[in-house]
Amino acid sequence: MSAGIPLAIVAPVGGRLAVVGLGPGAAGLMAPDARAELDRAQDILGYMTYVQMAGPFRPDQTLHLSDNREELARARHAFTLAAAGRHVAVVSSGDPGVFAMAAAVFEALDQSRDPAWNAVELVVLPGISAAQAAAARAGAPLGHDFCVISLSDNLKPWELIERRLAAAAAADFVLALYNPVSLARPTQFDLALDLLRQYRAPATPVVLGRDIGRPAESLIVTSLADIRGDQVDMRTVVIVGSSTTRLLPRDDGTNWVYTPRWHDGK
Amino acid sequence: MSAGIPLAIVAPVGGRLAVVGLGPGAAGLMAPDARAELDRAQDILGYMTYVQMAGPFRPDQTLHLSDNREELARARHAFTLAAAGRHVAVVSSGDPGVFAMAAAVFEALDQSRDPAWNAVELVVLPGISAAQAAAARAGAPLGHDFCVISLSDNLKPWELIERRLAAAAAADFVLALYNPVSLARPTQFDLALDLLRQYRAPATPVVLGRDIGRPAESLIVTSLADIRGDQVDMRTVVIVGSSTTRLLPRDDGTNWVYTPRWHDGK
Repeated sequence: MSAGIPLAIVAPVGGRLAVVGLGPGAAGLMAPDARAELDRAQDILGYMTYVQMAGPFRPDQTLHLSDNREELARARHAFTLAAAGRHVAVVSSGDPGVFAMAAAVFEALDQSRDPAWNAVELVVLPGISAAQAAAARAGAPLGHDFCVISLSDNLKPWELIERRLAAAAAADFVLALYNPVSLARPTQFDLALDLLRQYRAPATPVVLGRDIGRPAESLIVTSLADIRGDQVDMRTVVIVGSSTTRLLPRDDGTNWVYTPRWHDGK
Repeated sequence: MSAGIPLAIVAPVGGRLAVVGLGPGAAGLMAPDARAELDRAQDILGYMTYVQMAGPFRPDQTLHLSDNREELARARHAFTLAAAGRHVAVVSSGDPGVFAMAAAVFEALDQSRDPAWNAVELVVLPGISAAQAAAARAGAPLGHDFCVISLSDNLKPWELIERRLAAAAAADFVLALYNPVSLARPTQFDLALDLLRQYRAPATPVVLGRDIGRPAESLIVTSLADIRGDQVDMRTVVIVGSSTTRLLPRDDGTNWVYTPRWHDGK
């Protein structure tokens, strides 16, 4: 290297792409590293609801808002900006690694294999996922082995979802169900409940957490017998207990829900 | 109520018990609400390693350090202090709701049903769990349906663990395995691997995350064929991919690991 040529000219210009987990919504549940990454970003990409949740941002930061279904296009846009040397944050609610933007970002990179995209400094900042926030409000329903399943069949066949629900139920896992319903599939949550009722007692505790950590949060503790499909929507996370999950009465008339650490194996 | 008598004298003296998730270890991954709870606590209880991780604390705060195996005794001690009106924090690494202190606290409450314990203001503050931190460093291996299983048979029979591993493997879940080995059970991780090898291809990616977010963090990306039992210890979280989990080469010669959002169901 010739003397006198600044290093920055011969070295590749390094952009940065951070996939940032906002957590469930409250600022008090977002990791400081995620906050710092949002503060340093020049471009912020995401579903508009989540970008608003992550703000406010400074006038020198550029917001790129997109619809909820456009994960892959958003990921490609983020790489294009970062490959041009920008510091980019792609925001996800919850944990970006759990049914959120991280997988889409790696899918985009895998499909392109563009050397400029590969040279981007890529980091994933984890967050507290919706099931964890709902579990903490309800008690400790995830206190023993559990499975996390998305009921959305946009990207996988419904038969696989049924197979996984049956396997998890038969092996007495607690279940955390994401994306339980949508306008496009109003009846599948009921199908899932019917399937689970073949394995679990009617009194099995069920926790419905909606927008936990946001101003309109709602927590419902019900049972496999009593739950109704119209109590859940796309923003609800559903936790279905195992055979050992218990209710514990609280002084205010509601119940804690927890799954003990022990299991006799039957 | 007579005029002139301060409300605080006739109202019950309310203690507070917070079960606080520290996250994986780095201060930048601990939720601000967890930090605030630690700052307001008068008594901090926990396994000594975790209490040290959560500190430093002020001289007016009392630390109660205990051994890792004494969860139930620690939970009872916490209720006794809180029922006497103290503000108490019980610390857990990761998420207290995931194989940590929250379930033990509810077990203690359930076993006692002491009205004074029930009157304590009880809150659980979630955190980022070890599997999430390891997944974020590795890429997005938990990007699709996954199961979270503790391999410890201290509180459940090994047969149940094998049944759950087989069910999760047969239904093609990604697996996140906590407590993979201990001095008391050196060979069970190898048994678990042998079982998983009956369902998954030898090239299936495996992520070993140890002390992620702490100074001595180590991340190993290997495969079901190549992993050796001596690569893991009690502080390692093991993520075993599904049939769709992929490696993606990085410029530094290592690989990202991610599980795409889609699955063809086969």
